[in-house]
Amino acid sequence: MEHYRPVTWQRYLAEHRERFQGELIDFLRIPSISAQPERVGDVRRAADWLERRLTAAGVDAARVLETGGHPVVYGEWLRAPGKPTVLLYGHFDVQPVDPLDEWESPPFDPTVRDGRVYARGATDDKGNLLIPILSVEALLQTAGALPVNVKFLLEGQEEIGSPQLPDFLGGNKQLFECDVIVSADGGRLGEDPPALIVGTKGICALEIDVWGAKSDLHSGIYGGAVANPLHALVEILASMRGADGKILVNGFYDDVTPLSDEDRRLIAEAPFDEAAYMAQLGVDALYGEPGYSTLERAWARPTLELNGLWGGFQGDGVKTVLPAEAHAKLSCRLVADQSPERILDRLTDHIHRHTPRGVKVAVTPDPGRAHAYFVAATHPGNRAAQAAVEQLLGRAPYYARLGGTVPVYEVLLRELGAHAIAFGWGCNDEGQHAPNEFLRLKSFELGQEGYCLLLEKMAEMVPAGRPG
Amino acid sequence: MEHYRPVTWQRYLAEHRERFQGELIDFLRIPSISAQPERVGDVRRAADWLERRLTAAGVDAARVLETGGHPVVYGEWLRAPGKPTVLLYGHFDVQPVDPLDEWESPPFDPTVRDGRVYARGATDDKGNLLIPILSVEALLQTAGALPVNVKFLLEGQEEIGSPQLPDFLGGNKQLFECDVIVSADGGRLGEDPPALIVGTKGICALEIDVWGAKSDLHSGIYGGAVANPLHALVEILASMRGADGKILVNGFYDDVTPLSDEDRRLIAEAPFDEAAYMAQLGVDALYGEPGYSTLERAWARPTLELNGLWGGFQGDGVKTVLPAEAHAKLSCRLVADQSPERILDRLTDHIHRHTPRGVKVAVTPDPGRAHAYFVAATHPGNRAAQAAVEQLLGRAPYYARLGGTVPVYEVLLRELGAHAIAFGWGCNDEGQHAPNEFLRLKSFELGQEGYCLLLEKMAEMVPAGRPG
Repeated sequence: MEHYRPVTWQRYLAEHRERFQGELIDFLRIPSISAQPERVGDVRRAADWLERRLTAAGVDAARVLETGGHPVVYGEWLRAPGKPTVLLYGHFDVQPVDPLDEWESPPFDPTVRDGRVYARGATDDKGNLLIPILSVEALLQTAGALPVNVKFLLEGQEEIGSPQLPDFLGGNKQLFECDVIVSADGGRLGEDPPALIVGTKGICALEIDVWGAKSDLHSGIYGGAVANPLHALVEILASMRGADGKILVNGFYDDVTPLSDEDRRLIAEAPFDEAAYMAQLGVDALYGEPGYSTLERAWARPTLELNGLWGGFQGDGVKTVLPAEAHAKLSCRLVADQSPERILDRLTDHIHRHTPRGVKVAVTPDPGRAHAYFVAATHPGNRAAQAAVEQLLGRAPYYARLGGTVPVYEVLLRELGAHAIAFGWGCNDEGQHAPNEFLRLKSFELGQEGYCLLLEKMAEMVPAGRPG
Repeated sequence: MEHYRPVTWQRYLAEHRERFQGELIDFLRIPSISAQPERVGDVRRAADWLERRLTAAGVDAARVLETGGHPVVYGEWLRAPGKPTVLLYGHFDVQPVDPLDEWESPPFDPTVRDGRVYARGATDDKGNLLIPILSVEALLQTAGALPVNVKFLLEGQEEIGSPQLPDFLGGNKQLFECDVIVSADGGRLGEDPPALIVGTKGICALEIDVWGAKSDLHSGIYGGAVANPLHALVEILASMRGADGKILVNGFYDDVTPLSDEDRRLIAEAPFDEAAYMAQLGVDALYGEPGYSTLERAWARPTLELNGLWGGFQGDGVKTVLPAEAHAKLSCRLVADQSPERILDRLTDHIHRHTPRGVKVAVTPDPGRAHAYFVAATHPGNRAAQAAVEQLLGRAPYYARLGGTVPVYEVLLRELGAHAIAFGWGCNDEGQHAPNEFLRLKSFELGQEGYCLLLEKMAEMVPAGRPG
């Protein structure tokens, strides 16, 4: 007797909802923090988990591939001759979890509360990444085939800027050859209305280390006589941003493409409630570069933000120390056509020119960097995504940009010659990179339907730009 | 048969040198960090150790007294009618030990290397404090009596600003009544030439806490749109000190007594080798308020120094977070006639006026604070100290000031009506408040002779200013 097989992927998704949720929780238990050397084995465990999961979904040739760093997971289903090949992208590594004491439940002990699953990586990007795998399973287990050819490119180093990925892709161009890429990373601006992301920012980051005397000093005995690295660092950092939020680093804005009237009109059309936004953040005023709206600043203007700052005594009580060193980490979000390398050079030059006497400074650029990325709203992949969203949600999406960085888009375009369409289902308020990250289970389920529809719509795309 | 008793305290000190060194090491093993709540039992253990040690030295009525906070240890020897009463002061609490990884040997596992004992508290102030106890023992075990009346006031809260000491002394004025106080806290500027300290700075300290959004944010999604507490803190701190080291807080210098020509002459006469000072610190330039020499800045000008600064990500790698909070600890060293309370008010006012929009700020003054202190070089106690130093070292001391704070001097003067003479034997290069703190064993031994001589010289003082 043949095993019961539901007729439609819709019924399949509904019938397997609880199992899928359990699998998500299982996947989220793996602390795959790519930035922490001691977690290298956990990143590998997440890759192994995915290899098994792809195979279970009916994907062919699933395997873990070496990159020289954190691995990539590959899989394929290529039995739709004459149809486009869609490369499905996501990442299974996650951000660090500190400050740990602000988590209401442990970051790697996934907890469901009020229709949300709370865990590090729930929305960025393990939950989003699992969605297309489940959709592929539903299509294969019901129709017995996919409407397009599919490849999977699941990486474990996105949160550290994908250092080995360019060389890896460059060496495996044929394996990953495709017509369009669909990224399950990045999320929606909110549950409704729907949006399609057409731009992301670039990034570069560096650490500043300042040294004074060769050991910590008594602030009474030496205070006033010798430079304090904390004050020197404050002076350097204060020189980089004006009180109004404008970046004062020489040449910082030189290569920025000015916003056209059409750009500003499209951004202004995006739904945005400033009062609700402030309430959500718990602030009574917004802040940033003058002359631009909040969404323009967040989406389309370059930024410089301190990510960390430390030196001296941080404990309870008082310690009257004049510390020997001080440190800061900062990152810039870039827009077209800023070059991360050129911005790093300008930051480094600025820091050296603004270092006061009596201290030494070192600037260490982070190897992870990315260019800004854009894909036209008229790209066939975006048109397919738009049709899928319209069918699923009953209304047309608007086109938006992300202030966040998806460094891999530019890498994929450069190495594989294909544009990436963003099709993530998490929402922007789900605590990405922060304590108490979560994913709405409703988004998890909606996304599974969305990917089934998207693959169906993409079957109608003309395979463009491929030889033969 | 009577136990052998050396004829002179000099021989007694020489014969018991090894035992005394072993006792010092025993005492230094107790991690009596007053700033850390979890160490409260260890501070108490250090008090109990001293009670036993005083009794063993032949001191009467040794006991631990309650203050409502960390305790005081008292002892007395009052069998010299008609002679002055000398109150011997020191503190048995110590500073925290971080950064722990910079210690070459564990801070509470005292290690002797090259004639120095390395441990937290070796010089500040456990080693200095033990010296007069050993001198009293040597005098009692040889002469059978002291040349003056002696009381001990050993406290366990100096490193946190002696919060309960004023009330405690106010309630025990008779117990601690004396003609002069000799402090075994504070040290020499170097091994040679000898110096007597006639001034110390006051202090006040505060913490600044800055809050932005209600949780950490993704720096890509929110960067440029909402205030970053780290940048806000940098802006506040940069506003407090000019690039030249001058404090820009309104009214900061208002109550500073200008340095007279005579003040500057006395400071200029103090031996000071700026090149050696820079080499010792490992810096290629000194730094500070323009218009004053290095010693003037360190000894006689008020300062504002950051002691700690933190917020956001401090780990390895990159975390692109826009943190929810940022913190700084700072302290000011004050000179006559600055009031710590008034300076705290001015700092608080300045911080609030310089807080940018979009963040909230809180200023928390530390309860520990002190006025600057001076005692005339012509005070009978200083004259006795000068005579003791001349006899011991064969040359006259010069008069110096400390940039450091000994908050208790002003408290003792106010509560007991007696001036304190500084008679500490550690040197200023011994890593006070820093990793690898040490005490030269030579200073430890020299100090024991110095205290015997000092008590002898003080017997010749006219008991001044006491009723009856």
